[in-house]
Amino acid sequence: MSLSTKHLLGIKNLQKEDIAIILQTAGQFREVLQRPVKKVPSLRDVTIVNLFYENSTRTRISFELAEKRLSADTINFAASGSSVSKGETLLDTVNNILSMKVDMVVMRHSASGAPHFLAKHIPAAIVNAGDGINEHPTQALLDAFSIQQATGGLEGRKVAIIGDIMHSRVALSNIYLLKKMGAEVVVSGPPTLIPKYIEPALGVKVEYDLKKALAWCDVANVLRIQLERQNQVLFSSLREYNLTYGVKKSLLDSLNKEIVIMHPGPINRGVELDSDVADSGHSIILNQVENGVAVRMAVLYLLAGRN
Amino acid sequence: MSLSTKHLLGIKNLQKEDIAIILQTAGQFREVLQRPVKKVPSLRDVTIVNLFYENSTRTRISFELAEKRLSADTINFAASGSSVSKGETLLDTVNNILSMKVDMVVMRHSASGAPHFLAKHIPAAIVNAGDGINEHPTQALLDAFSIQQATGGLEGRKVAIIGDIMHSRVALSNIYLLKKMGAEVVVSGPPTLIPKYIEPALGVKVEYDLKKALAWCDVANVLRIQLERQNQVLFSSLREYNLTYGVKKSLLDSLNKEIVIMHPGPINRGVELDSDVADSGHSIILNQVENGVAVRMAVLYLLAGRN
Amino acid sequence: MSLSTKHLLGIKNLQKEDIAIILQTAGQFREVLQRPVKKVPSLRDVTIVNLFYENSTRTRISFELAEKRLSADTINFAASGSSVSKGETLLDTVNNILSMKVDMVVMRHSASGAPHFLAKHIPAAIVNAGDGINEHPTQALLDAFSIQQATGGLEGRKVAIIGDIMHSRVALSNIYLLKKMGAEVVVSGPPTLIPKYIEPALGVKVEYDLKKALAWCDVANVLRIQLERQNQVLFSSLREYNLTYGVKKSLLDSLNKEIVIMHPGPINRGVELDSDVADSGHSIILNQVENGVAVRMAVLYLLAGRN
Repeated sequence: MSLSTKHLLGIKNLQKEDIAIILQTAGQFREVLQRPVKKVPSLRDVTIVNLFYENSTRTRISFELAEKRLSADTINFAASGSSVSKGETLLDTVNNILSMKVDMVVMRHSASGAPHFLAKHIPAAIVNAGDGINEHPTQALLDAFSIQQATGGLEGRKVAIIGDIMHSRVALSNIYLLKKMGAEVVVSGPPTLIPKYIEPALGVKVEYDLKKALAWCDVANVLRIQLERQNQVLFSSLREYNLTYGVKKSLLDSLNKEIVIMHPGPINRGVELDSDVADSGHSIILNQVENGVAVRMAVLYLLAGRN
Repeated sequence: MSLSTKHLLGIKNLQKEDIAIILQTAGQFREVLQRPVKKVPSLRDVTIVNLFYENSTRTRISFELAEKRLSADTINFAASGSSVSKGETLLDTVNNILSMKVDMVVMRHSASGAPHFLAKHIPAAIVNAGDGINEHPTQALLDAFSIQQATGGLEGRKVAIIGDIMHSRVALSNIYLLKKMGAEVVVSGPPTLIPKYIEPALGVKVEYDLKKALAWCDVANVLRIQLERQNQVLFSSLREYNLTYGVKKSLLDSLNKEIVIMHPGPINRGVELDSDVADSGHSIILNQVENGVAVRMAVLYLLAGRN
Repeated sequence: MSLSTKHLLGIKNLQKEDIAIILQTAGQFREVLQRPVKKVPSLRDVTIVNLFYENSTRTRISFELAEKRLSADTINFAASGSSVSKGETLLDTVNNILSMKVDMVVMRHSASGAPHFLAKHIPAAIVNAGDGINEHPTQALLDAFSIQQATGGLEGRKVAIIGDIMHSRVALSNIYLLKKMGAEVVVSGPPTLIPKYIEPALGVKVEYDLKKALAWCDVANVLRIQLERQNQVLFSSLREYNLTYGVKKSLLDSLNKEIVIMHPGPINRGVELDSDVADSGHSIILNQVENGVAVRMAVLYLLAGRN
């Protein structure tokens, strides 16, 4: 089994077969991670640079763990301690790193399209760990893996994505992936945070009424509200957001069904998600985090196998 | 041999037997560290996250070295490059890290009690690497190990702890440990920096006269003055502090005895400790640093063995 | 083969034979780095601390990769997360790190002479990764290795060093090395950036006319203009610098010869070097970066062998 792509830049241009291979391989690595000895020698002679131009706790640690479980050598690089402050171009930085015989680059960048630009100009494999408001493909893959695990599959599954759809790379990658794999998707949130073109462009339905969206779905993927950007524009207070679009226990209890609750983290507790929901038995939020390592192992392993 | 505790949160609630086991195990690791091959495979399949919410050179490096000598996989995490700035709760951060199948967390935090709070809510072993003004248990253990090494034991040893007793987690952990192990403790320093309740509460004597404290003791543990906080309030100048409470060669020469000089570092040379004392043959300051790695190896090894 | 020096502090006091040994050993490691398995067990029980008091992407990554290829254990330490902010002296910091049984220290520091000061007081091997405006010896060694590779040798080679000669540790280390190895050196740049004493003191010629310098040389090593410091003083605009001292394709095309183009990076494209030159077939800039890892492996390997 091997991927038809050299990089993982996004879900948009990924083949359905590639997604299936990644999810299947992630299942195997998940088994490995249940064992006392969690390390495999697969990438013993591979060197990976984690190039993070944006802060991230969990994504960076998740990738670093995945790399170490695969026995790769890892180098961490954060923008603050870097040539970035000296004005070097991204392309020069990456070309220099690759000249040192680095095999793969995992990159997070605030500019949408940064990894795609690099992929056109450099020979090594690039894994997009989040680019601006564009894509976050490993998040979508681990979400899909977690939905499969919780509900038995993706085909025909009804998934509601809730919150700031407009600015979320997690939402966009999830929509691409779920549609490709035959799931149905509804997006829900404040009208100002849902692009008007999303229904015709991406084949998802818009449901502004949160309760109706929840009543329809099998799985609710609740997005993080980017407090630093939006709340002042949109709501007089975070409390107001919580009252209208926060996922709360009372709301879930009023439905005649049980739905799976997901969140990509970090959670704003009491804003988009209440604690009694986040920590309930219906929440698979920590499974998502756990699955993230297995999914990233699968991606790195499969891309390295193509060289 | 195994510990009766799952975490190392502080010395206060540690059994005397646990302390003895740690010190004895540290002695074995110290032997290993004298060999050309300093690495042992003990924690080969253990992953440890170093979660430092406060800056620290030596403590972080000491833990990281201890982990690498034990063949553990290590992940470093500093607050500045983290979800902390995104407002995630400490509990969410740690729960997420643990979901990635991390076995142990070494944590430094500016809030007293932060590791105790975590220990109530998470399944993994936690090592407190310093919490606020509360405890710094591995520092007390390495200090005890170093006193044993220099003087042959702890029982009956007379130890003076000198400086800012009120705000020092090093002082508090040392007092707990020394009292448990049968040493006598006197604290000395400016009245404003010694809590009034310390004598009845902790069973230590207070001696405001530095010379008398030194004349009494076998070992003087000189604490760092936190320049950033206290000097402006307490003294018209650092020079004034040095004149009254600085440990100086002339003062030591005036005693009819030799005492062992300790300091947890980093030293403010010429403030709480003069260079000709810090660098003298009576100083075991660099031994403390060396022993720190062995003691931390012992703690990590023993806690990992309980899982 | 072994070095006659315990540290690599600079090129100035390095023996010609030592340089030859390093370059020859680097050639062997370069072969290793062409293989699929790039790792050798040479420094398996050696621990190295990378102590960077100045930001640096490529130098730090290059050293870290060199260390990992040699199977050393590495600890990274950046000034921002350190005791430096607590006012500890450099000597105390390094003495503490060494007490933890660290074998080697790779250090970058903004103060010229910092590693020389340390070398007088500590027992471990120190590698200078750049000190103030003094030296950057591994850069000069990798430059020499790259010149050898591109032109067959150093003896008799004509090298022009172009740009800010006065403040450049790269220039100084290169001049020392090239002169020792029998190359001829001309420096070129604005009169304000070339020290008056350089011709008698170092045995290099000064040529203020860039075109004449290029017409003379086999190899042009173009230095980075430190934008943050100099441009406002020296030039009304960076464009003016580029017009007078920028290395451009039209200028190179006007010569009746081909010359090798080098740059230590990061490049200010369109200032000291135009992109069509930097990315041309005559440029060996990425070879320099690649060779950096092999040269640093050689230095670390040879110094470790002396212990």
